[in-house]
Amino acid sequence: MSVVVRHIERADPAVIAGLAECGVATVHEAQGRRGLLASPMRPIYAGAQVAASAVTISAPPGDNWMVHVAIEQVKAGDILVLAPTSPCEDGYFGDLLATSMRARGGVGLVIDAGVRDVRDLTAMGFPVWSKAVFAQGTVKETLGSVNVPIVCASQLVNPGDVIVADDDGVCVVRREEAADVLAKAKKRVAAEEDKRKRLAAGELGLDIYDMRGRLAEKGLKYV
Amino acid sequence: MSVVVRHIERADPAVIAGLAECGVATVHEAQGRRGLLASPMRPIYAGAQVAASAVTISAPPGDNWMVHVAIEQVKAGDILVLAPTSPCEDGYFGDLLATSMRARGGVGLVIDAGVRDVRDLTAMGFPVWSKAVFAQGTVKETLGSVNVPIVCASQLVNPGDVIVADDDGVCVVRREEAADVLAKAKKRVAAEEDKRKRLAAGELGLDIYDMRGRLAEKGLKYV
Amino acid sequence: MSVVVRHIERADPAVIAGLAECGVATVHEAQGRRGLLASPMRPIYAGAQVAASAVTISAPPGDNWMVHVAIEQVKAGDILVLAPTSPCEDGYFGDLLATSMRARGGVGLVIDAGVRDVRDLTAMGFPVWSKAVFAQGTVKETLGSVNVPIVCASQLVNPGDVIVADDDGVCVVRREEAADVLAKAKKRVAAEEDKRKRLAAGELGLDIYDMRGRLAEKGLKYV
Amino acid sequence: MSVVVRHIERADPAVIAGLAECGVATVHEAQGRRGLLASPMRPIYAGAQVAASAVTISAPPGDNWMVHVAIEQVKAGDILVLAPTSPCEDGYFGDLLATSMRARGGVGLVIDAGVRDVRDLTAMGFPVWSKAVFAQGTVKETLGSVNVPIVCASQLVNPGDVIVADDDGVCVVRREEAADVLAKAKKRVAAEEDKRKRLAAGELGLDIYDMRGRLAEKGLKYV
Amino acid sequence: MSVVVRHIERADPAVIAGLAECGVATVHEAQGRRGLLASPMRPIYAGAQVAASAVTISAPPGDNWMVHVAIEQVKAGDILVLAPTSPCEDGYFGDLLATSMRARGGVGLVIDAGVRDVRDLTAMGFPVWSKAVFAQGTVKETLGSVNVPIVCASQLVNPGDVIVADDDGVCVVRREEAADVLAKAKKRVAAEEDKRKRLAAGELGLDIYDMRGRLAEKGLKYV
Amino acid sequence: MSVVVRHIERADPAVIAGLAECGVATVHEAQGRRGLLASPMRPIYAGAQVAASAVTISAPPGDNWMVHVAIEQVKAGDILVLAPTSPCEDGYFGDLLATSMRARGGVGLVIDAGVRDVRDLTAMGFPVWSKAVFAQGTVKETLGSVNVPIVCASQLVNPGDVIVADDDGVCVVRREEAADVLAKAKKRVAAEEDKRKRLAAGELGLDIYDMRGRLAEKGLKYV
Repeated sequence: MSVVVRHIERADPAVIAGLAECGVATVHEAQGRRGLLASPMRPIYAGAQVAASAVTISAPPGDNWMVHVAIEQVKAGDILVLAPTSPCEDGYFGDLLATSMRARGGVGLVIDAGVRDVRDLTAMGFPVWSKAVFAQGTVKETLGSVNVPIVCASQLVNPGDVIVADDDGVCVVRREEAADVLAKAKKRVAAEEDKRKRLAAGELGLDIYDMRGRLAEKGLKYV
Repeated sequence: MSVVVRHIERADPAVIAGLAECGVATVHEAQGRRGLLASPMRPIYAGAQVAASAVTISAPPGDNWMVHVAIEQVKAGDILVLAPTSPCEDGYFGDLLATSMRARGGVGLVIDAGVRDVRDLTAMGFPVWSKAVFAQGTVKETLGSVNVPIVCASQLVNPGDVIVADDDGVCVVRREEAADVLAKAKKRVAAEEDKRKRLAAGELGLDIYDMRGRLAEKGLKYV
Repeated sequence: MSVVVRHIERADPAVIAGLAECGVATVHEAQGRRGLLASPMRPIYAGAQVAASAVTISAPPGDNWMVHVAIEQVKAGDILVLAPTSPCEDGYFGDLLATSMRARGGVGLVIDAGVRDVRDLTAMGFPVWSKAVFAQGTVKETLGSVNVPIVCASQLVNPGDVIVADDDGVCVVRREEAADVLAKAKKRVAAEEDKRKRLAAGELGLDIYDMRGRLAEKGLKYV
Repeated sequence: MSVVVRHIERADPAVIAGLAECGVATVHEAQGRRGLLASPMRPIYAGAQVAASAVTISAPPGDNWMVHVAIEQVKAGDILVLAPTSPCEDGYFGDLLATSMRARGGVGLVIDAGVRDVRDLTAMGFPVWSKAVFAQGTVKETLGSVNVPIVCASQLVNPGDVIVADDDGVCVVRREEAADVLAKAKKRVAAEEDKRKRLAAGELGLDIYDMRGRLAEKGLKYV
Repeated sequence: MSVVVRHIERADPAVIAGLAECGVATVHEAQGRRGLLASPMRPIYAGAQVAASAVTISAPPGDNWMVHVAIEQVKAGDILVLAPTSPCEDGYFGDLLATSMRARGGVGLVIDAGVRDVRDLTAMGFPVWSKAVFAQGTVKETLGSVNVPIVCASQLVNPGDVIVADDDGVCVVRREEAADVLAKAKKRVAAEEDKRKRLAAGELGLDIYDMRGRLAEKGLKYV
Repeated sequence: MSVVVRHIERADPAVIAGLAECGVATVHEAQGRRGLLASPMRPIYAGAQVAASAVTISAPPGDNWMVHVAIEQVKAGDILVLAPTSPCEDGYFGDLLATSMRARGGVGLVIDAGVRDVRDLTAMGFPVWSKAVFAQGTVKETLGSVNVPIVCASQLVNPGDVIVADDDGVCVVRREEAADVLAKAKKRVAAEEDKRKRLAAGELGLDIYDMRGRLAEKGLKYV
């Protein structure tokens, strides 16, 4: 039952870099408002904005053995994505593991559980999105799996999917759809730039998006 | 059922400015410990301190159409206050809407739901108090109302009420009571200044507030 | 029932200072993964790292009278630790009380409830770990106790126990065990330094901790 | 600040009885999907279904003094509705107070806090809707108010408003609108009866409500 | 983006019936401790125990239009499984929809949101597992999808997967694995029967499972 | 670090039986409003009312090995009290373990985590108070301790302390204080009987407890 999948497909690095620039909100919209991890997933410090290929971990509650196993599978530009098999907020990850990740080119961690050593991680500039900061230690007794599909914070994440994360949270993009989503996201960015200017100049969304007729039709009354 | 009230009364701008200076904790105490919104309402960045007139929004879950409608009603010095009609943490508001708000002189947002683009909002210095940061997009399909009384984060907010918000959270002051609350808040600030000096000099609250007799009477034992 | 214990034992100041340097995660591990307060206890600002002797407070919900009583018992290097007798998030503590604490040499507050005036507290550099930031005022009507054993955020805290707190949260160390825990924590710090170097150089935890055999034995499959 | 309003208006008893028969979901729909208290408000036992006039209580956290004060204001057919001034789950109410309520004709309690003696209350058939069952005792030290407007579980409740409560939760109906809401609710009940028969006979909502065209127009694809 | 898949594969009815008999805890163990929906999913009444083929619904928050669409796709022995696209506890489903479901042979509902009319549903014996009971009404404005893979309460559910639900909660079994899981579950039931007898006779798990040696080896001390 | 304490002191069985009769709310009040476990601890079925000697378990998250170890230490009239070392809701306990408990005279379980097989447990009449019903299985890999002091649901529980539990929740009574608490509880029961009669006859708490003068003094206004 416990497996480590050693070879996974990853998206084109240029596409991944493009998604990082677009950011979570735009990517999420561009792919039809799908893929957003649940809101308890918050960054440990403000300002990080990354996109990376998911190396996934399914781990038992309070047991971080599989993180060590997973790090061996990490290539440059990868991010760990960990889902415990039942709800847990223990601190699976700290600055030593981040040091190891960085040595392998890993760029961050997304974990539906806890993290610790956040002061050191912040000083290192190693970004983590987690549902808790909690120093509670873990054991190394029970197997899990690496690079299998997982559900993390209410979203399905396949190994090699693209993770986009910033101050707004975390979004997953299917590897096969990444290039297409990037194209849509870029269009969105361009369109937003135009709208931003018009809004800044005082035009109203009511007019830019031509909403007045439909509002009246639905029955909105001004009094 | 869905209405937009176009004309609302606002408090005296000088009073509003005075309340901003006093801050949430002082204003809340000054008006008899009333009006504080529930504690999940947190600022997206530290350091903002504002007071402003409430333009209220009652909106369906996951539908931000009424935000566009409300912005047209915003005048300089106003703040949007949005309560969904059932619990929701979707991201009703981002940097485009903030740009529009700013173009009309709006100074912030209080929302018992989610907000997104928080990095941009922080860079703009556009303050938001929300119960979640969540990039989840919304639709524009169902009407709500603007400038009607709402319950937001456990407090009744009428259009035109004064919203005071800072790092401690958000407090609502009835428009009609604003001048009176400000007078009381200023007295409190003055009184606190004196107490702060005495406490800094090593005097104890037990003595300053003359508590020892009553503590003994109630039966407190020192052992 | 309501008592104030005036004389409590404290740990050796040098030991306390040593524990502060080690930080929460290390101390927690060093004492066998015990003593960590529940994860909702978060610092009001990043970067504080303290260790101090606990002056404990058991207080009714919404009543901060005992905080005034407790401050008189504070000596230089002490930290207040408050547990309400039933769940409460009211703001028991603000900048005036912090001023008083500081005048007596108190170094911080740990409270399983709310705190307010966080902007001022941050400006003062007075650290607080709390489960909420909430300006809600409290009364002074009902007695509690000072310097009795309490359960705060799921951990037993005795008066005089050492509290270690940083960005990872809060950990309690029994006063009698403090020197022993410090010794173990220092060994741990030294051992971690060596591991950090090896990990930074690209060695894997799998090899450093010699995990491969046991993983295979448990049945982990690489595919 | 602390007042007891002795004379309040109540709705017509026949209207109140009619609303009880309709139940929460129907009444909530009939008045435009307004007035529903937050979902943590649950009955202590299944099967109770009541409508009654609200006698409101604003009480400090952990202090049930005002319940005693309020019971004197209760008339036959009234229900107590209590909101603490800050979040609290203590047990403000038990079988003795229920005995007193019943002696005065009171028919139940809605409380955004805790209740205790639930076995006895169940045996008595005295219904309570609360956010917690918790035996934690309260004090009698601080005043609150009786028969003032309160926000209870996210809804504004005025004294004399009609409270409808059953296994689905609790809904408030403005006193002045009660007769009108009842009329609409009755129409709804009649209409539902017809629909129930058609649905039971195998007709689909898609056809009964004529949804197919609009679904197609919005772009729904059958594959 | 919004699709209704009309033809889905279902598991063998005999296998489904067998899984119903085994119950959630046994099936969950039999398939390697996978597939359990999150614990907030609770039955509206005690005693129901079902297994059924999933007809899945992805629906916007506060919008139950797709439930009507889905019911047309229901065949005898199916259960609806609804996941909102963002967190929501509104009441998507009540007794009218249950009547329609029953007319088509549908046997229940699993919903990571709210349900209403629970008294009527209980009287009908129509079981629902939900995260909330909440009468809040929904609209019919925005499309979703039917019979696509969804994540419901932290588990991936494919259309046609077998849902097993009882007082312990809800478990999903992949359609392709259902027969195999049933075989393992039956073995487990048989093995448990033997253990139950031995335990009832006073034998200890420590001896039945031969744990003493391994406990000693790990270092357990009896004092 | 992992120990099993084989010999613990227990309270007098007659005292324990007396406390069971008094129930949680009365016992909690009788001992000065102390000892109540947090409100998420709820019974799996209504109507059980027990008092028993605590056999305590400190167990890792998701690991029920120590339950097997603990059952060997159970004597007739004991109840298991389990606290995980970090927050967890997995199902540590089901009908097989209950069968084993019963064979040794054990009368129930209090667990700050999950339980499963609740239908069978209900049929057996084996009461459990837990924070979750969750079928999630556990492993048997990591040691914990039996019969050491634990903090369970925010209360310190020593082995041999008396646990009182009913529909209101769970209360712990120190073994050494049990007889004294029982005496006070009995007085309270007697006093309540008299008050119940007077309240049932229409007297008000305001008069029985002579509250009117103090209310007026504090400033309560009747309008």
